[in-house]
Amino acid sequence: MKLTNFDMVIFGATGDLAMRKLLPNLYQAHAAGLLHEQGRILAVSRSQLSRDEFLARVEQEAKIHLPENISAQVWQTFLQRLDYLSVNVLQFDDFQTLQGKISAKNSDAIVIYLSTAPHYFATACKHLAQVGLNHDKVRIVLEKPLGTDLDSSRAINSAVAQFFQEKQIYRIDHYLGKESLQNLLPLRFANPLLAQVWHKDWVKSVELTVAEELGVEERGEFYDQTGALRDMVQNHMLQMLCLVAMETPKSLTADDVRDEKLRVLQALKVLPENEVAKNVVRAQYQGYTTEHRVASDSQTETFVALRAHLNTPRWQNVPFYLRTGKRLNQRYASIILNLKPQQTLFGEQSSRLVIQIQPKERIEWQIAVKQAGNHLTVTPAWGSLDLKQNTQTRRADAYELLLLEIIEGRLNLFNRADELEAAWRWVMPILNAWKNQNIPLYTYVSGSTGPIEAEQLLAQDNAKWHDLTVL
Amino acid sequence: MKLTNFDMVIFGATGDLAMRKLLPNLYQAHAAGLLHEQGRILAVSRSQLSRDEFLARVEQEAKIHLPENISAQVWQTFLQRLDYLSVNVLQFDDFQTLQGKISAKNSDAIVIYLSTAPHYFATACKHLAQVGLNHDKVRIVLEKPLGTDLDSSRAINSAVAQFFQEKQIYRIDHYLGKESLQNLLPLRFANPLLAQVWHKDWVKSVELTVAEELGVEERGEFYDQTGALRDMVQNHMLQMLCLVAMETPKSLTADDVRDEKLRVLQALKVLPENEVAKNVVRAQYQGYTTEHRVASDSQTETFVALRAHLNTPRWQNVPFYLRTGKRLNQRYASIILNLKPQQTLFGEQSSRLVIQIQPKERIEWQIAVKQAGNHLTVTPAWGSLDLKQNTQTRRADAYELLLLEIIEGRLNLFNRADELEAAWRWVMPILNAWKNQNIPLYTYVSGSTGPIEAEQLLAQDNAKWHDLTVL
Repeated sequence: MKLTNFDMVIFGATGDLAMRKLLPNLYQAHAAGLLHEQGRILAVSRSQLSRDEFLARVEQEAKIHLPENISAQVWQTFLQRLDYLSVNVLQFDDFQTLQGKISAKNSDAIVIYLSTAPHYFATACKHLAQVGLNHDKVRIVLEKPLGTDLDSSRAINSAVAQFFQEKQIYRIDHYLGKESLQNLLPLRFANPLLAQVWHKDWVKSVELTVAEELGVEERGEFYDQTGALRDMVQNHMLQMLCLVAMETPKSLTADDVRDEKLRVLQALKVLPENEVAKNVVRAQYQGYTTEHRVASDSQTETFVALRAHLNTPRWQNVPFYLRTGKRLNQRYASIILNLKPQQTLFGEQSSRLVIQIQPKERIEWQIAVKQAGNHLTVTPAWGSLDLKQNTQTRRADAYELLLLEIIEGRLNLFNRADELEAAWRWVMPILNAWKNQNIPLYTYVSGSTGPIEAEQLLAQDNAKWHDLTVL
Repeated sequence: MKLTNFDMVIFGATGDLAMRKLLPNLYQAHAAGLLHEQGRILAVSRSQLSRDEFLARVEQEAKIHLPENISAQVWQTFLQRLDYLSVNVLQFDDFQTLQGKISAKNSDAIVIYLSTAPHYFATACKHLAQVGLNHDKVRIVLEKPLGTDLDSSRAINSAVAQFFQEKQIYRIDHYLGKESLQNLLPLRFANPLLAQVWHKDWVKSVELTVAEELGVEERGEFYDQTGALRDMVQNHMLQMLCLVAMETPKSLTADDVRDEKLRVLQALKVLPENEVAKNVVRAQYQGYTTEHRVASDSQTETFVALRAHLNTPRWQNVPFYLRTGKRLNQRYASIILNLKPQQTLFGEQSSRLVIQIQPKERIEWQIAVKQAGNHLTVTPAWGSLDLKQNTQTRRADAYELLLLEIIEGRLNLFNRADELEAAWRWVMPILNAWKNQNIPLYTYVSGSTGPIEAEQLLAQDNAKWHDLTVL
């Protein structure tokens, strides 16, 4: 495998994401031999630190996120890739210094990872462009949150677009780096048997669940401004929905795949504000308002359950049920296709296909089998395929995969501006209805499976969520 | 569950089958509470034995086939069901004594199990009828071999039919008692998703394998007169083929199911004798002729591989490959549907469905999944459903299930006379060609996967057997 000689500049390198995810995953890629020998990582932040001081912080804050038994020698060779530069995003001069550092080495890919607050994106991009760091070899990586509504998202996209072409922009949604989500394309489009049933004639409903056991933890201030709809649904869950619902792309190239995902987002039926209450349940776990740095009168939702429909021939009249929440009874995420019950020689049989994303990564089918013993009666059993078991290779974290994709210049796993806007366009009426109308914020007990109102939402369709208590 | 009060008369009760299978399995049914309290077992053979002498033999010869830790008390209550009567099949008087014993108790089912050489069947049936033991409550059980060719099979069937109606006759093929074979009906007809692909548009070929690790062991005399075609193909494997290939029966009643199985046997394309050499491979393992009680110049086949076709719309041009043999590299039996390769977004993909009958009982599908890591490439993985794992209940031996079916009067798992004749009609040209023509008897090494000629048979179709060395 030919590796790409790269420079990676990490803005916000002393921040939480860099220490917890980016540097540890770059180390893993390094240790696995997946980084070009001359690949270099230039850590950047406002702090006035020497290289040694920065490395000391990496020892303290990043290394703890790696297994204890990593090789000291490999760790040292990793540190040799690291350099540090103090840059104030608002100071043009600092970018000239940065440019000098970069141009000294003629890399094939210059990755600029903006792990900063989004309000710095515009200025950072402008200054990068002014020193010429927006040429074809430069890739810019944007971390979420990319806006808090349609307008602010558009503002970010157009500010960046002034200086960078769309094909240079890598918008991170780390869910797209998860193996179990990446597996949806092969599952759907390399298995004709499954493709056979992947539409309205066979599927009664589609269920997406992302349940978290944790609460807001240290993220109270951010989360309280955000809520579950923006934090999970607008990005991760709509992306999951795209992968489940999309048509066969013309090819596996980034734009063909992203074109089809965009069509799904555009086909989502936009809820008129006066139908939001009927189709979307919002709730907050009891005790949320006493969490660290959360407003004592907070109306932020920590749970959302909703019913969506797609205007496509494939999914006509098939409800898509989405739910996500914090402080639920367990950490669990899955995509479930509930198949239509059918009359058989053994009476009416229903079946389902479960793609579990976490904690296990596996595919499960419900199959009717003979009950052991005399009398020919059937009982449901589960066939399964463990995605982790069926591979010999080390499984990388989502961030490691994404970082390597960026270095190699593949855009497949990153959101295009039009996708992001289409997702926001669908989310806005819900945000507006919550703001403008008197829509209840329900409550639920920490450690439960969510509010009773989420059950009632599906009961309207004579449906039930996959039971989170019996997994 | 209402149990049927029965009398079971076992002819040949001192024989191998009774001691090794029938009595141990009746014990298991007894211990599991599946036998009516007053159910009675009357052991019958020519030997002049007292009840106590017979029980002593049961202790010695049958009990060793049960787990060592069975309850002594339950064993004693089982023995209380047993009685012994010396009967010479040729002596009419003995049947009068038998009749007296039976009529003393008014059972709902009288099961007469003829575990004797088949040439006694006619006389036994005649004498049973003469003492009135052929009334509606009487069921007659016939053990294989039911003939050695079409004529002898017909002779047995018509001799028995003189005295018993077809609905009273239970012809044993113990393969039909296996859970994994019984599971084929639910698998095919309670799972619309699988039913969807169960035909020529999806299936490239069907492979049936019954590989044995053992040689002829103590059965040399019988086996040398029989051979693999009669011992395995004519009965077990053609029954497997019926279950795989049959159309949806009108109902699950015995005759509706057996009607459909019969249609499969009738749809098998009969090979003209001059095409046998091209479609059927026979072979003998090296060293067979030195086995105990095997003729030193024996031409008996211990291995058969063949290609068959069905004249039905569902299976047009789909080859059915059958192979069975002794002294192969392992004990393994399976039914495999090789699906047609199809063009997908990920290139040509092929897939298969494996129903493993032994040693494991499980269903396995080949699914293309993403190879872990960067680059979106697919690799085949196996999903599986362990049929033993998915049941809480004790799993009975095939013979126990069959004995209980007989007591309860369900004919589903037993061969009807017309099925048996249809199977022989298809087998005869092969037997005749082997007898009349100069068709080679190939050899293979003990512990191998069979003769090279079996591989060549499939190579004509650009096909390969499922590799027995990588299971």
